[in-house]
Amino acid sequence: MNIAYQMPTKVLFGEGCVCANAALIAEMGSKALIVTGARSAKSNGSQDDVVAALSQNGQDYAVYNKVMSNPTIACAYDGAAFAKEQGCDFIIAIGGGSPMDAAKAMALLARQEIPETELFSGRYYTGVLPMVHIPTTAGTGSEVTPYAVLTNHAAQTKMSLASPLLFPKIALLDARYMSGLSNSVTINTAIDALSHAVEGMLTVRTNAMTDIMAAEAIKNIAFCIGAMKQNALTTDIREKLLYASMMSGMVIANTGTTVVHAMGYPLTYFKDIEHGRANGLLLAAFFDFLQKSVPEKVSEILSLMGFLSVEAFKSTMIELLREKEAVSDQEIMEFSQIAIKTKNVGNTMIPPSKNDIINMYKASF
Amino acid sequence: MNIAYQMPTKVLFGEGCVCANAALIAEMGSKALIVTGARSAKSNGSQDDVVAALSQNGQDYAVYNKVMSNPTIACAYDGAAFAKEQGCDFIIAIGGGSPMDAAKAMALLARQEIPETELFSGRYYTGVLPMVHIPTTAGTGSEVTPYAVLTNHAAQTKMSLASPLLFPKIALLDARYMSGLSNSVTINTAIDALSHAVEGMLTVRTNAMTDIMAAEAIKNIAFCIGAMKQNALTTDIREKLLYASMMSGMVIANTGTTVVHAMGYPLTYFKDIEHGRANGLLLAAFFDFLQKSVPEKVSEILSLMGFLSVEAFKSTMIELLREKEAVSDQEIMEFSQIAIKTKNVGNTMIPPSKNDIINMYKASF
Repeated sequence: MNIAYQMPTKVLFGEGCVCANAALIAEMGSKALIVTGARSAKSNGSQDDVVAALSQNGQDYAVYNKVMSNPTIACAYDGAAFAKEQGCDFIIAIGGGSPMDAAKAMALLARQEIPETELFSGRYYTGVLPMVHIPTTAGTGSEVTPYAVLTNHAAQTKMSLASPLLFPKIALLDARYMSGLSNSVTINTAIDALSHAVEGMLTVRTNAMTDIMAAEAIKNIAFCIGAMKQNALTTDIREKLLYASMMSGMVIANTGTTVVHAMGYPLTYFKDIEHGRANGLLLAAFFDFLQKSVPEKVSEILSLMGFLSVEAFKSTMIELLREKEAVSDQEIMEFSQIAIKTKNVGNTMIPPSKNDIINMYKASF
Repeated sequence: MNIAYQMPTKVLFGEGCVCANAALIAEMGSKALIVTGARSAKSNGSQDDVVAALSQNGQDYAVYNKVMSNPTIACAYDGAAFAKEQGCDFIIAIGGGSPMDAAKAMALLARQEIPETELFSGRYYTGVLPMVHIPTTAGTGSEVTPYAVLTNHAAQTKMSLASPLLFPKIALLDARYMSGLSNSVTINTAIDALSHAVEGMLTVRTNAMTDIMAAEAIKNIAFCIGAMKQNALTTDIREKLLYASMMSGMVIANTGTTVVHAMGYPLTYFKDIEHGRANGLLLAAFFDFLQKSVPEKVSEILSLMGFLSVEAFKSTMIELLREKEAVSDQEIMEFSQIAIKTKNVGNTMIPPSKNDIINMYKASF
């Protein structure tokens, strides 16, 4: 038995957790940089709760709300410069994966001079601004991972910064912030979380601890599939999805992801297919690929969701994700060429060849 | 759904993990205080592995090997003074709960002046010596908890220091160090771990995350019961028990323990009954007490072990723990008076009255 596991982020989950844990935020520093997108943190109540907690603590803050979907490297440098200019000594990230990931890169760049050519090297000094992360979607799990995914236009894909320095100190999870999310955003993000848990169980770094956490996440998401199909998203369903996305984040924080993420990134970069959806469209082909070599593991995952076959899983995914995008043979060749170069391929329990990747794309589109 | 969860200790589990992770030890400091008992760390190979790793790293060390079973407050102050005298800047604890717990108190006292009257107050400053913990029994889980249990002669019982400062930075778990443990030590420590997992599920702080970890621990220990009965302790069994004790530690790190620990401490203090055994002798009565109020929870725990009734569980515990000690009615009254005063009582899912405690003792002895 081999286990390598760490989870330094302190997790506080539940209704009203931001205000209830204002005292923890008080320990973080004297001036916060609130990192978020243009709109949702204002409309879903999360930013108001954060500002109320900061005010109660007598802490100052500045707001950087220019994080776009699939944030760029330029955005990370811009926010870091703003943090320095404003004299912020800690960060509160509010939003989906985009603000949370951008905030991590900002936390690093605000304390270290790193040229763009070295940004993805993983060779960083010790200091980062301490971070509080508040997810407002239930998918990325970024609040408990050491990763920050940024769009790298030079490499024409999304790339990960990875370092234990990037673990937030605290994650505050309140499902009420998700109550206004559309059914399609809810589905796409839930499928992202599902993909993390599934992939986590199918990496070379899978271990007993990550497997029980992944199983817990998969069972909770499967429980919510019916509600997502019917757009019947109660508070209980929202909480289960948020809990599952956090657990999935804890899994990939330790296992990393697989060829599914490697294949999904070009779909997002070139075809503008949302990240969770991109992974979801690929999962059935991934199961088919692995079923030859590790059939028990694939069956175990399917049965956690209540499916007896990959085909049954695939039907449900089609019901959830609806009509798939068209991807040409030419595009498949190009995307496969990009995907095969990533580390995620070698992290897959059975690493696929370029031909395997081409076949998985073809089976998916 | 409410969750409060933290586990800042990095875990590395597997054969040869001490030497394989020498580089992590290198980051801890320049001179280690090795804290251990008089004998076992030398005979089971763990101290040799630690010294080899330190030598490879060019790190200096001093050895404090005077930790007794159920370490005293005086021992903690003595070790801390030795650490300061020797200029040690980090600690490597090797052993069962006694050296690991004593080492935590030493790590605190080596960096902070705390009078004995304030030792259990929980009001500490920030600094402690960073710690690496290497368990050589599979029971306490201290390698992943923020607790240090010391014998307090003034209070005539065992008492806990509790602070997030006391989480070790790193836990290194290699089941080979347990290969020489006798069957009775293996059983007593396994029952300690079982008690942690069971109690964790029956506290007021129980949550979804701690419950899945507790369930994992309970299932693994239950799997090993047959082997313990037959004294057939293979490497696989040793690893399962070590994994379970670690998971149980992660549970109580977040939930705390219950009246079972409160009742067990006087048995250890006054009757010299080993800690895990003391808890084990009380568990069936604890289940009986709770079955009136939370029958589903008790049934869930029993069924994780494959038992259909408290009676069936009790028979197995008698088989494992053999003849129980005699405890007089007078002693029961005295121990109940001590137990009712502890915080663990109020942490129990259904807090017992003093009369309930008396009845649980009487049912157990």
